[in-house]
Amino acid sequence: MARQPIYSHWHKPLRSWEERALRTQVAIIGAGPAGMFLAHLLHAAGVAVVVIEQRTRSYVENRVRAGVLEQITADLMGRLGLDRRLRAEGLVHEGINLALDGDIFRIDLAAATGGSTVTVYGQQEVMKDLFDAADARGISIVWNAEGVALHDLESERRPVVTWTLGGVAQRLECSFVAGCDGYHGVSRSAIPADVLRTYERVYPFGWLGILADVPPAGHELIYANHAHGFALASMRSPTRSRYYIQCTLDEKPEDWPDERFWDELCLRLGPQGGAAVTRGPSFEKSIAPLRSFVAEPMRWGRLFLAGDAAHIVPPTGAKGLNLAVADVIVLADALTVFFTSGSTAGIDAYSARALARVWKAERFSWWYTSVTHRFPDMDGFSRRLQMAELDYIRTSPAAQRSLAENYVGLPLVR
Amino acid sequence: MARQPIYSHWHKPLRSWEERALRTQVAIIGAGPAGMFLAHLLHAAGVAVVVIEQRTRSYVENRVRAGVLEQITADLMGRLGLDRRLRAEGLVHEGINLALDGDIFRIDLAAATGGSTVTVYGQQEVMKDLFDAADARGISIVWNAEGVALHDLESERRPVVTWTLGGVAQRLECSFVAGCDGYHGVSRSAIPADVLRTYERVYPFGWLGILADVPPAGHELIYANHAHGFALASMRSPTRSRYYIQCTLDEKPEDWPDERFWDELCLRLGPQGGAAVTRGPSFEKSIAPLRSFVAEPMRWGRLFLAGDAAHIVPPTGAKGLNLAVADVIVLADALTVFFTSGSTAGIDAYSARALARVWKAERFSWWYTSVTHRFPDMDGFSRRLQMAELDYIRTSPAAQRSLAENYVGLPLVR
Repeated sequence: MARQPIYSHWHKPLRSWEERALRTQVAIIGAGPAGMFLAHLLHAAGVAVVVIEQRTRSYVENRVRAGVLEQITADLMGRLGLDRRLRAEGLVHEGINLALDGDIFRIDLAAATGGSTVTVYGQQEVMKDLFDAADARGISIVWNAEGVALHDLESERRPVVTWTLGGVAQRLECSFVAGCDGYHGVSRSAIPADVLRTYERVYPFGWLGILADVPPAGHELIYANHAHGFALASMRSPTRSRYYIQCTLDEKPEDWPDERFWDELCLRLGPQGGAAVTRGPSFEKSIAPLRSFVAEPMRWGRLFLAGDAAHIVPPTGAKGLNLAVADVIVLADALTVFFTSGSTAGIDAYSARALARVWKAERFSWWYTSVTHRFPDMDGFSRRLQMAELDYIRTSPAAQRSLAENYVGLPLVR
Repeated sequence: MARQPIYSHWHKPLRSWEERALRTQVAIIGAGPAGMFLAHLLHAAGVAVVVIEQRTRSYVENRVRAGVLEQITADLMGRLGLDRRLRAEGLVHEGINLALDGDIFRIDLAAATGGSTVTVYGQQEVMKDLFDAADARGISIVWNAEGVALHDLESERRPVVTWTLGGVAQRLECSFVAGCDGYHGVSRSAIPADVLRTYERVYPFGWLGILADVPPAGHELIYANHAHGFALASMRSPTRSRYYIQCTLDEKPEDWPDERFWDELCLRLGPQGGAAVTRGPSFEKSIAPLRSFVAEPMRWGRLFLAGDAAHIVPPTGAKGLNLAVADVIVLADALTVFFTSGSTAGIDAYSARALARVWKAERFSWWYTSVTHRFPDMDGFSRRLQMAELDYIRTSPAAQRSLAENYVGLPLVR
């Protein structure tokens, strides 16, 4: 514990001139879900934060991203008083459907987990709620920060964040930095190469996704494993559908005019699912690759990583946003305890606690991807194993319980 | 149902001269577990059988094979009145242990499944019980049958089995042939290549197994995943231990003198498991490859495949013998219904019913192998997924229930 003494002055409350002089307790890099949920959690606990974001609010708010919230995410929005629109507009789902070559069966998530559900509510809506409340609550967000750099993360001095704003150099002193700036952000790369360990899996396919203002194929999601490949029927609202089909990595959105997409989607969803699809013009069409990635450790000196800065999951099972939320709940607890009591127990345990849950979510996302997608090198044995696994899930309450508890989100490790 | 008429005379009881003239209702090829359990089941139901085996009784009875009986296998031995020694000598296990890099946790099979257990009782003992009772009950077994061949399996005529016995040609007419003669037997190859579909997975490692007359390391089995590879602590009796370690396919038993084996075993089992190992001279040491294999369909005309003739599983999870038992329970029911009522519903459904369960057991055996073994091409991500999966199992009652219900044996599909 050679580092212990240098913590001693960090938990003193900042005086107002320090905030004006761009000093804060926690500098949060990135105004995505991880950064903004962390900002709200710390602000609510009386910890001073400044959020530094390189993009504009409009860019961050309009990125098309995830749309399924785990129970802990919906609960957190409630706890933070951010759930007015979520309660009014979010679609609570008590089940999901799985299709194997067109045959559909349902998993009752609520029954299998003792009442947990997921809520369909787009990340764009979540961000709007987070930003509006940040404005109302006086949480500082610096937009358009160019050339963000982190300094003195593991030295005797306090960490410093620098950037330029309209060409003018800026500087923020803090006690801790929360790296919430995503896979391509600067935070992870601030950890020395001889400390950082990374683990990666790139999948040999992508998801071609569309948005269309047509009623969804059904009340709940359909995850389809078809001989042609994976398909997913999802939605953003009762009038906006979100559909995906597995595609190869060399395909382009323009290879898939709407009619071709709808035909293939309906085929993969099967007769029952396909018949429920309402076709219409798509207004968004893009291809996303699928990747699993984990960086360890999630803490280095006074830097903590959270969300996509530390880990990426394939979108199957919708864990990405929710995993970021789980990270920052643990991190906010740890930092709040430190600033309240001076105890470093929470921040010292953060990386291991977060990673224990991250790896289970990585495992689930990998497994759920593996069992629902067609792999290009797949032999007959592997295909039959997929079919056997889906038939096992269909017939086993224990298997359904296991899938369901992962889907709605495993308990937090605290 | 064009074939219906030719069944019409098959279910008539055979007159005694027909049996003497080597006619029977069901010719069973192979006196291993599948063939002998089927013989007892059919005999008990009043169906005439003859078992044809190319080896000697001593050879079949002394083959070192499986040693863990699922609940349905133990139950079947009871139902057939074959469980006197099993009840006296079998070791009932209510749990198994899993070790990850030396850390051991237990899964309570009985609690997770509502009371199901497994019983340690060597296949050699099972065969002795089956043979002794066959002698006592007058079940005909032809030993040393050379050049067994199957004829007229799908024609208007009744099937015929031919072989030679001490150079003299033999011939058996029957209504059905049960191919219970294992992976290398003649039965599967009697199915035309354009009908038979096969699925296979060969694993890039083997199991080096020893038998030693020393007390086992514990009351229950330990399945260990160690950075060096898999290890299994099992037993045959309170004074006979059965241990395995994963090895490469080019290793030889002579590469592993006893002391080297014990050292490596104890390392992989970890401090707690290793400390409980009693060392002693091994009296059997051999290397077995690991393979998954399924042949479809399991019925062709008047031929039914059962057990290893139709499917092979890697030994992880001890499904091989038990899967053969599940097959013949379904097959015996189907044949008994046919001979009793003339209904072909059961025999027509046999292949699909058996395969539905076979594929689930193949999935479990593959999964349990995948999660406990070290694969030569394994990257860091895959290793972390293994660790996450084992940690998930350790912490999730639902995951334990799923593992347990597969381990004790899924319900029969009837």
